Amino acid sequence: MPHLPESVDPAWLTPGAFRAIGSRRTLVRGGEGPVVDSVHEEVAEACARFGGHVERDASPGPYDLLLDLTGDDGSEAFTFTRDDGRTTVTASGRPGLLYGLFHVVRLGEDAFRGEARRETHRPALGLRMLDHWDNVAVHPVMGQVERGYAGGSLFWEDGRARGNLERVRAYGRLLASCGINAVAVNNVNVHRAEARLLTDRIGEVAAIACALRAYGIRTHLSVSFAAPVVLGGLATADPLEGGVRAWWAEATARVYEAIPDFGGYVVKADSEGQPGPFAYGRSHAEGANMLAGALEPYGGTVHWRAFVYDHRQDWRDRTTDRARAAYDHFVPLDGEFASNAVLQVKHGPMDFQVREPVSPLIGAMPATRLAVELQATQEYTGQQRHVCWLGPMWSEVLRFRPDGTPVAELADALVAVSNVGDDRFWTGHPLAQANLYTFGRLAWRPDADPLEILDEWIGLTFGTEPAAGVRTVMEGSWRTYEKYTAPLGVGFMVQPGHHYGPSVDGYEYSPWGTYHFADRDGIGVDRSAATGTGYAAQYAKPWAEVYESPETCPDELLLFFHHVPYGHVLHSGRTVIQHIYDTHFEGVEEVEAARRVWASLVGLVDAERHARVTERFEEQLRCAREWRDQINSYFFRKSGVPDAHGRRIH
Amino acid sequence: MPHLPESVDPAWLTPGAFRAIGSRRTLVRGGEGPVVDSVHEEVAEACARFGGHVERDASPGPYDLLLDLTGDDGSEAFTFTRDDGRTTVTASGRPGLLYGLFHVVRLGEDAFRGEARRETHRPALGLRMLDHWDNVAVHPVMGQVERGYAGGSLFWEDGRARGNLERVRAYGRLLASCGINAVAVNNVNVHRAEARLLTDRIGEVAAIACALRAYGIRTHLSVSFAAPVVLGGLATADPLEGGVRAWWAEATARVYEAIPDFGGYVVKADSEGQPGPFAYGRSHAEGANMLAGALEPYGGTVHWRAFVYDHRQDWRDRTTDRARAAYDHFVPLDGEFASNAVLQVKHGPMDFQVREPVSPLIGAMPATRLAVELQATQEYTGQQRHVCWLGPMWSEVLRFRPDGTPVAELADALVAVSNVGDDRFWTGHPLAQANLYTFGRLAWRPDADPLEILDEWIGLTFGTEPAAGVRTVMEGSWRTYEKYTAPLGVGFMVQPGHHYGPSVDGYEYSPWGTYHFADRDGIGVDRSAATGTGYAAQYAKPWAEVYESPETCPDELLLFFHHVPYGHVLHSGRTVIQHIYDTHFEGVEEVEAARRVWASLVGLVDAERHARVTERFEEQLRCAREWRDQINSYFFRKSGVPDAHGRRIH
Repeated sequence: MPHLPESVDPAWLTPGAFRAIGSRRTLVRGGEGPVVDSVHEEVAEACARFGGHVERDASPGPYDLLLDLTGDDGSEAFTFTRDDGRTTVTASGRPGLLYGLFHVVRLGEDAFRGEARRETHRPALGLRMLDHWDNVAVHPVMGQVERGYAGGSLFWEDGRARGNLERVRAYGRLLASCGINAVAVNNVNVHRAEARLLTDRIGEVAAIACALRAYGIRTHLSVSFAAPVVLGGLATADPLEGGVRAWWAEATARVYEAIPDFGGYVVKADSEGQPGPFAYGRSHAEGANMLAGALEPYGGTVHWRAFVYDHRQDWRDRTTDRARAAYDHFVPLDGEFASNAVLQVKHGPMDFQVREPVSPLIGAMPATRLAVELQATQEYTGQQRHVCWLGPMWSEVLRFRPDGTPVAELADALVAVSNVGDDRFWTGHPLAQANLYTFGRLAWRPDADPLEILDEWIGLTFGTEPAAGVRTVMEGSWRTYEKYTAPLGVGFMVQPGHHYGPSVDGYEYSPWGTYHFADRDGIGVDRSAATGTGYAAQYAKPWAEVYESPETCPDELLLFFHHVPYGHVLHSGRTVIQHIYDTHFEGVEEVEAARRVWASLVGLVDAERHARVTERFEEQLRCAREWRDQINSYFFRKSGVPDAHGRRIH
Repeated sequence: MPHLPESVDPAWLTPGAFRAIGSRRTLVRGGEGPVVDSVHEEVAEACARFGGHVERDASPGPYDLLLDLTGDDGSEAFTFTRDDGRTTVTASGRPGLLYGLFHVVRLGEDAFRGEARRETHRPALGLRMLDHWDNVAVHPVMGQVERGYAGGSLFWEDGRARGNLERVRAYGRLLASCGINAVAVNNVNVHRAEARLLTDRIGEVAAIACALRAYGIRTHLSVSFAAPVVLGGLATADPLEGGVRAWWAEATARVYEAIPDFGGYVVKADSEGQPGPFAYGRSHAEGANMLAGALEPYGGTVHWRAFVYDHRQDWRDRTTDRARAAYDHFVPLDGEFASNAVLQVKHGPMDFQVREPVSPLIGAMPATRLAVELQATQEYTGQQRHVCWLGPMWSEVLRFRPDGTPVAELADALVAVSNVGDDRFWTGHPLAQANLYTFGRLAWRPDADPLEILDEWIGLTFGTEPAAGVRTVMEGSWRTYEKYTAPLGVGFMVQPGHHYGPSVDGYEYSPWGTYHFADRDGIGVDRSAATGTGYAAQYAKPWAEVYESPETCPDELLLFFHHVPYGHVLHSGRTVIQHIYDTHFEGVEEVEAARRVWASLVGLVDAERHARVTERFEEQLRCAREWRDQINSYFFRKSGVPDAHGRRIH
């Protein structure tokens, strides 16, 4: 177990979480290597604290818990058995043993009660990955971590890798405990310094990989498609050029020399200024397959992002619809991607707004491997200054059935943009740790009830006493956030650049393709097939029909799909304008209520955590009021419709 | 004459401008010291180029031009005489001789024609000053020059003074040639590095002062009101504390040891985060007088800026009016300021918008010395990417009669924020040199016809052939800029932060006190006494009455003073909404026309200057179209009123 300064928060792996194991007798049996060592160390450390006892590969004596590695097949599954007053975890692969241990930790005393239980657990998704948008060199605009709200990077500082990797080990431990098995260590926007991680700076990546390996986590790297030019001095990065392919093959061979279990590459190509195959008249399949070919001999994978759109759109042009872009670009390529190329698709068609429909690209490429990308870092959802537990949103995405089958079953991998930094609470807002935890647990079991996961996290982190209060604060926080920000799925009413706080017209006349088209009569984007951009028709039935008409479109997505008058009556029975007013008043009231509940937990939550959340609540409330007043004023000024309840609109 | 790299533009002091003097015989008589040396060098250099001849203090031989210094009284006046086929400039002070020389340069051959002329010239305003908002250390947001659009600073680079002062000397020469006699060398926002210019880094200022002294220019310094705390380690900066007064007295004594003709201090106090006397419960008069007391023994002056307002205003609060702030803060202090304290007042009540009324503070403090502050750097007027010759605006300000007497006669000093940097054309946009020149000439003679000054500048810079074309491009450029940007005096529809390009609501819900209050029915700020903020009543008659009513308020200021319906009919006969549409279409058409005229001057203007302006015109046109379309779309969406002429609004 890594040794961290006292000041670093244990997150959900509190000492108390290990009491049940630590006060018992455990036998760790079979296998060797860093992962098994980690398992043994975890138990030993717990026993040192709570008076229990652990043996490894000893001759059978009396024990309460057997952690039994029976093979070497790399499997992540484990079987939990309760029999004859003893608890057994059996795994045929090292990672399974580790996950089994943390299962026992989560169960606590329950792991040692009852009889005749036997359950086998295996992850629904083989790859459960965090992408770090961490820069090696501090970017002049984006800083050390692009869209990071938790301090600096765990991996990089001021242009170089951090020397002390204890924090990285501790991070790996947290990730393993919730089931994450892959990390990409640098930003998908690959700048000059970061490009070199692939070649002469691979040693820095190898050191990180070594620290993470002890917790069953494979390391991935974001690379620049232009690397052969930028780093290799070639004249081209054309994926069909022999020289280019040779360059990547050789570079990849050297990567695997340094990191034998290297996971693969993550690529953002032809997107927001990043280089890509379009420059050479090649398709994205040709680009991805070239990298897949280089990785194939070693079992590596290329994650090819589908986030391709025109970010220099003319706002006057109403025919171009950014929401259509990923589908339009990629669906014609279905079947052309190599088997170790995974298309990584953001869960919504735009960019991690608080409410979007599920991307129509998901399910539309049956012959292509799919990773669904979520965003744990709260770029558009309060930047870890606001409580916004994203479990319900992610669960809705994973359960959505584009064409009968749920998203979670269509996907090979679930990826989230990490919300972690070198902050003492890991995530800036201590309650944002729940997003990290929930992501990992949902990736393991996408059909889990997110509220059960929340309760699990609360129990581990806070114990029993404050649990009900913390749950009250968190369970509805995503919908609360939705209420006081952009209404009814329209999105993007944020301050340009940093994306924090309201600016209704902030992106309205911009090149980013993110518009609401509000005028004095109505608001929303007509994406119907009949009269709009045709985006709705990218869905399979029934969704194409559901979304096509304002009569059947769900309220919460109405303005994403339709331009309607302010007087349009929602399924809720309220008009659009009255819905805007009501939700914005309600949202702020809900924040006020949550803040009061949190205040009541003083003394039940450790003082520093309580103080940090209290301070964040002050800012959340200030910001929520700003959202309420700006949104309400904007639409009152535009529509002229007074609030039915006569509340104050400025 | 300073020796600069060939690449640095001579601006209006082209070699050709010296042909008339340089081809004649000149006698420089009387006096010594750097200013007289500069006069002699100017003539000598011209003669070396054009075959003339210069002598200094020689026994009278035949000459065409006598530059005659008859005393040592420091006077800036000179007398120009034409008699007996000879031209004579007589001055009783060194600066007068220098200004007389440049008068002859401006006249060119005309200085040597005709007979029996005798004119005495003296500056209307004793202090004609440029304030540089240059930072010593590069500011993380504002850069090397705050609101600078002409490259880096002439004085500072990356935290230190530039070693080579030839460019500073050349700058001093340009300034002297248009009549400027004072420069403040650092930003009024005094950060940590800049604060130390007052004490241990005064040597760097002294070196600059030495270079400028040769052209009759005194150096001033922006200081931090908190200097006794920040630099001196005192516990307070309270202006009534004996220890604080002693600290300033000693610091000032050391400044004058280093720079005997030091001009004085410039202070931005209690403004936008800068420290000031309010922290100690003292008035701004008490603050200013404390510094005035320190400067008084040496003949120095404190320039105390009146730019004091609440920059953390709640946008919901309609009772607070930033426009009122300077008057409300300072008028009660009239008579309390020391005689060497000058209150420096921005020409308008807000912040250098393309159209503002004259500040009501001007003329309202008869017992207080006044400096009027203009902004040559085009922060809100196109940032030296757009042609925007500000002469007509400044002339309107200087001729305005708050209470019978023109502004120019109420003021002791005219100050402009400099538009110059280390750009090869000095001002980024070559045509922005005209703003620098016009400022100097208007400060000397505020009742001059600005178009005559423009012609003077064109003649010196371009010669005869392209003159008519350049005039066409420039003369109406301020009104053109006004047309395509924020309408009818409402101001501030700019992108937040950098202030370039349109954002109609960019400052509408901000803490900066800069609002337009547009709704579906109308637009504008009610600043009347009867129903608004009462700002209009800060003016003396007749202006208080003129501005009070929408019926008498000038069209171009209507939305500054009144909130009116879009259908309100202007004196022009057009409605407000139709005026918005019309001016925005016209503004862009005028840019297109000016661009065509400029293109026609190819071959008549030196190639690099022509290319630079051509490149800027591309950006100006792009940006003007963006302004047109965003403003028109915004108001069409809000008002629903179609363009009477059916033009395309998006």
